[in-house]
Amino acid sequence: MSSPSSSAALIAELQAEVASLRAALACSSPPPPSSSPPLPPPPLRAKIEAMSAEVVDSNPYSRLMALERMGLVKEYERIRDLSILIVGLGGVGSVAAEMLTRCGIGKLLLFDYDTVELANMNRLFFRPQQAGQTKTAAAKATLEGINPDVIFEEHTYNITETAHFDHFLDRLSHGSLTNTTPVDLVLSCVDNYAARTAINQACNELDTVWMESGVSEDAVSGHIQTLLPGRTACFECLPPLIVASGIDEKTLRREGVCAASLPTTMGIIAGFLVQNSLKYLLNFGNISYYLGYSALLDHFPREVLLPNPECGSSWCRKRQEEWKGLWKAKEGGREGGGQGGEEEQGVVHETNEWGIEVVSEGGGSEDDDDDAAAAAPGAAAAPAPGAAAVGGGGEEGKEGGKEELSLEDLAALLQSMQSL
Amino acid sequence: MSSPSSSAALIAELQAEVASLRAALACSSPPPPSSSPPLPPPPLRAKIEAMSAEVVDSNPYSRLMALERMGLVKEYERIRDLSILIVGLGGVGSVAAEMLTRCGIGKLLLFDYDTVELANMNRLFFRPQQAGQTKTAAAKATLEGINPDVIFEEHTYNITETAHFDHFLDRLSHGSLTNTTPVDLVLSCVDNYAARTAINQACNELDTVWMESGVSEDAVSGHIQTLLPGRTACFECLPPLIVASGIDEKTLRREGVCAASLPTTMGIIAGFLVQNSLKYLLNFGNISYYLGYSALLDHFPREVLLPNPECGSSWCRKRQEEWKGLWKAKEGGREGGGQGGEEEQGVVHETNEWGIEVVSEGGGSEDDDDDAAAAAPGAAAAPAPGAAAVGGGGEEGKEGGKEELSLEDLAALLQSMQSL
Repeated sequence: MSSPSSSAALIAELQAEVASLRAALACSSPPPPSSSPPLPPPPLRAKIEAMSAEVVDSNPYSRLMALERMGLVKEYERIRDLSILIVGLGGVGSVAAEMLTRCGIGKLLLFDYDTVELANMNRLFFRPQQAGQTKTAAAKATLEGINPDVIFEEHTYNITETAHFDHFLDRLSHGSLTNTTPVDLVLSCVDNYAARTAINQACNELDTVWMESGVSEDAVSGHIQTLLPGRTACFECLPPLIVASGIDEKTLRREGVCAASLPTTMGIIAGFLVQNSLKYLLNFGNISYYLGYSALLDHFPREVLLPNPECGSSWCRKRQEEWKGLWKAKEGGREGGGQGGEEEQGVVHETNEWGIEVVSEGGGSEDDDDDAAAAAPGAAAAPAPGAAAVGGGGEEGKEGGKEELSLEDLAALLQSMQSL
Repeated sequence: MSSPSSSAALIAELQAEVASLRAALACSSPPPPSSSPPLPPPPLRAKIEAMSAEVVDSNPYSRLMALERMGLVKEYERIRDLSILIVGLGGVGSVAAEMLTRCGIGKLLLFDYDTVELANMNRLFFRPQQAGQTKTAAAKATLEGINPDVIFEEHTYNITETAHFDHFLDRLSHGSLTNTTPVDLVLSCVDNYAARTAINQACNELDTVWMESGVSEDAVSGHIQTLLPGRTACFECLPPLIVASGIDEKTLRREGVCAASLPTTMGIIAGFLVQNSLKYLLNFGNISYYLGYSALLDHFPREVLLPNPECGSSWCRKRQEEWKGLWKAKEGGREGGGQGGEEEQGVVHETNEWGIEVVSEGGGSEDDDDDAAAAAPGAAAAPAPGAAAVGGGGEEGKEGGKEELSLEDLAALLQSMQSL
């Protein structure tokens, strides 16, 4: 039994400790919930209802809307209504997705079945802490953080598998912002022939415009290509060399052999691909039907690739029939026909053994560098498969040059496609 | 005065509260330190001692070392001994820094005095949550997360201010990995004439090779340029149009008027800049002395720009004397002279009123597109200031074309330099 005085001292001591503990508790943060999953980080900025051209530091669209004020693009904000489907989130596709996100595209549909590895860190976009995540999930998380105004769909499967192809077709034909109409453009950023063939088949059948990209296995060349069904060469317009030669693609890709890659080449090809997409969709400048890049020489061949009337794809032949006489490749803007722009007079060339021709977009003179580039290791700088042109068109006010691709060229081109 | 029993009850109550508060405090996290800065996040992967070519998913260098196995680069791992100084972390500089970081460069010295704004989000690299941070600090944090093997120096000041110029010179001449020898290369990624002039002055004096980059205010063209003191045109070899015309640069830059920019154009120019740097430093392919990009036409002029013997920079004239007869521009690799590679026979041209000439690197034929590009809004696709050539050299096996720049061209070029 304690004396009243000692009790009073103890009470004072305990009261002081209570006060001290309460103060300490007030300073500390609440305990983390023990079982619930971590909450997603809050959106980093509020969504922006309409693109503004206001020149303030807090406006992420001021530098884009300036394109409108400068007279380069008529209605830049139309980009918010557009939907683009990207197949492949490697060194080109992931950077293309980031560029489109930063440009404020309305919606991106991202397709990839792979996961992020540390071996991908020599290219832009993915970060070491994302290793092990699916590329689709990692990309979506990063891109939403960059621009919460963009709508993302992620699809983690291989489009070449029969079980998934119908779903892929559905997203292609109903992937718009309203989920009722087709996407506005498909970008192919894959590293193999099978996936390109699947995209080609879908786009020919659904009459969807797509753009193809590729980087060579030696990392020092690449290309982009615009495929307008029935107007420019499709991916099958080239008599399939693999089939013709009885080559198994898997033996060409040399499993286990590590292809080289560089963030520079892939970033440049992603830049060309998205620049071409913006020019096509927002209707400014001249799109490239085929644009190559040879890094060793800084050489950039540019061509128009016309379709092969004897293409193996019946849908391609059907689209060619539909467009017969209605379209010519041109320099002065978007494609002719629907847009009613200037048209060029086509020039009929003789066909070669394979029915393969390339209509040069350069000036009239032939440039030996073209051949050098095609024969060099950086072969992707020359036109990629899908490079068939029959009844090709010259250019307005120019004499269209003509180059025939040899079997060696085609083999080099094929090799150039194997890596991304 | 309290009774013993009520005292005992109060003591029990207080003791219970103390126990409860202690338990609550134990569950909560410690209060944040009030004054110390937040600790940096732990490195995301361990540092890697030596670059390995092993083909495993966990090797971030396998795709780069493959360049060696493929015979493109002799000793890729030499990149770890190299040090690059980057001035300007805008839409080009930040992406160039990321590319070099992912390539495994030994050391990067980053210079910028600006802070990240939401208005920068239409270009690659910075993220919304970094708004308000200095670009140097934000870049360093991001880049260290991507590749902890790279050493970073950040310098947050304006190199054009007299108070800082000596320190800038010191980092240029002692910025190597050992902090005793000069950096291996300087990259200019700035958006104004004053900063380029400061870099030019430092590099002429210290005999340091630098590469310059620029993107036009209308966002649809850009260029890169290699400046080898005494061998290629320096930034002052051009009779300074601003001085000659009495133009105040600030009036040209139109403060408050928002320049347009696109992640595509800036990513492409960053890609060209780093690709050229890799070719120069690792000795593969042919570097470009001047490479332009016109996005509207996908046109890529390429030139050799030789120095002006009457250059206003005395250091430039001194370097020209040192190199007299020892160096010729060439296509087949790095520059001649020190490397003992093939050399080209220079062709002496007459000088024009300004002493300005551009030696075309293209084939012998003249291409009208060049002029079109120079006159178009995307004027940066034509040579930038620093485009002076006297006693120009043709190319081996080719007839060097010659283009004279008009005052209109120069004005367009100047305008093209104003934005980054």
